[in-house]
Parts: sequence; C-alpha cells; structure tokens
Amino acid sequence: MADVLEVKPLSRAAFAAFGDVIEFEGRESYPINNGMADRFHALAGVELGGADARAVISLVASRRFDLPRRVDHMEFHPHGSQAFIPLDATPFIVVVSAAGPAPDGLQAFVTNGRQGINYHAGTWHHVLLTPYAAMRFVCVDRDSPDDNCVDFHIPDSDQPLLALP
Amino acid sequence: MADVLEVKPLSRAAFAAFGDVIEFEGRESYPINNGMADRFHALAGVELGGADARAVISLVASRRFDLPRRVDHMEFHPHGSQAFIPLDATPFIVVVSAAGPAPDGLQAFVTNGRQGINYHAGTWHHVLLTPYAAMRFVCVDRDSPDDNCVDFHIPDSDQPLLALP
Repeated sequence: MADVLEVKPLSRAAFAAFGDVIEFEGRESYPINNGMADRFHALAGVELGGADARAVISLVASRRFDLPRRVDHMEFHPHGSQAFIPLDATPFIVVVSAAGPAPDGLQAFVTNGRQGINYHAGTWHHVLLTPYAAMRFVCVDRDSPDDNCVDFHIPDSDQPLLALP
Repeated sequence: MADVLEVKPLSRAAFAAFGDVIEFEGRESYPINNGMADRFHALAGVELGGADARAVISLVASRRFDLPRRVDHMEFHPHGSQAFIPLDATPFIVVVSAAGPAPDGLQAFVTNGRQGINYHAGTWHHVLLTPYAAMRFVCVDRDSPDDNCVDFHIPDSDQPLLALP
C-alpha cells in the first residue's frame, strides 16, 4: 500500500509553488477610508485564461469529512485560479501536487484557522477537506461556458492515507 | 439641517439597483466534491472595465465607527465592482445612492450579520460603516494602474445624520 501523507502547517513559503495564502498575519497594509480601515491589498490575483471568462464570487458549504481516508483523486483547472477563504475560524486541509497527480508528488497542508488559499491555474489539488467541522467558504474563481476541470482517479494501490495531523 | 437617514434591513430586492447581496439564505445551490459540499454559484460577478485591469482578493480590517455621525462623503468606482464579505458575524451599514451623491438619493441598509455586498461599477457609496465592532472583510475588486475612484464631499448643511438603527 501507499504511504501515509504527512500534513504540514500551511505557510506562504511552503505553498508558493501551488498558489497564495490569504491571511492578515505578516502582510503589509495601507490605510483606507480616512484611516478607519487597513487594506491588505491583492493577497491573491484572480487568473482568467481562456475565452468568455469572468470572475465570480460564490459561497460553498462543506460537510465534515471523516479522516483517516485514502486520497483517491486529484483535479486542476487549466484556465483559472480558485480561492477558498473560510468564514469559520476552523482549520481545513489542502492536498496539492507539484508533479501532476502522481502520488509521489502529493503534499498536504493544514491551515491555522485564519488562512484562506488560492490555487493558481493548473495546480493539481484534491477537493477541500474539512475534517474538523462543517465549514463555510467564500470562493472566488473563473466562470465560463467551457469545461475548466481535469480529473484524475488515483489507482487504489497508490492512494496515500490522509490522517488528522 | 438635513434629515436623519433611515436605516433599512438589507435585502436583495432593496439592494438590486446598487449591487448584489452575498448570502446563503434563500439562494439555490448544487452539489460539488462528490456530494460533500454545496456551491452557491456566482452570487456576484466581478466587473472589470477599463484597460489593464485584473480582479484581486484583498483583506480589510475596519475600526469601529462611532454613531451617530453625519454622512459627509460619497464615492464610486467607474470601472469595477467592489465586494465586501464579512469574516465576523456582525452587522455593518452600507450607504448608497441611486441619484448621484445628492443627499436626497441616499439610502442606508444594515446587514443581518451574515450578508456580504458587491457594489456594481458606478454605484455611489459611502465607505464601509462598522458601528458595532471592529470587523474583518474579504474584499474582491478591480486592480489597475489607473484611477478608479470618484469622490464627492457633501456640503455641511446637506449632510444627513446616520444613527444606529
């Protein structure tokens, strides 16, 4: 059987090859609204490749996932980025891969409960994993009439095990 | 002196001329992630007019505003929409105008603590008003090198009074 996937704390440095971490901590800001607010500007950009695309703001409600579980699929969006920013102060787990969907390249990260993420276009990722509670997210991604999702089913014998960190 | 501005509950119908209300309640969804999540799709679209523009995701931290206060300015962004989705379950107040910055056209709305808003491009609005607590927001708007903000100072004698509803 395949290995157990190590779950590392999410950080901007560790996630840089896959996308952006959307968080207040450690980021620069500038005052807006006559000094009544601080803006932490452009922590992530929305990528809109392909034709007839627009950026949209959606909400997502995710059920609680039971762990441990086998990581059985990966997917990516060739033409657009995809951001998830949690509305609940709860950690969640992201699984990404720098080397296509091959199990050897998988990496798992757990957020600190205040971090959102933005997958760059083309980043292989598992769907959102919310093992601690049902959670709500703001999602910002690309909307278009075309198909923008490539799926891969990991063969049973290669599926790494994901457990709570 | 000018009038007291009535603060109405925010609803999609009441806000339709100004922008979108981003909320779960009363909206359609469809299952994603093999049934483990529901997506409330495209509750708002990001408008990107003008040249060299991209959509960006920012975070905003707003101090608590004291009310009552006079509404002394309005602004609008000609080339892009601007969304604010609260990360804290706290109401906030939005002031908009359908008739330019003239005080007669001002309307004030208070959110229910679970609603975000997206001003359409060109909608006159006051800056975010957070009278109940300091609040954090996800902001999704347009980034470009050009100037995309038109400001208007309301003459002192015309400034309506805004009080807690």
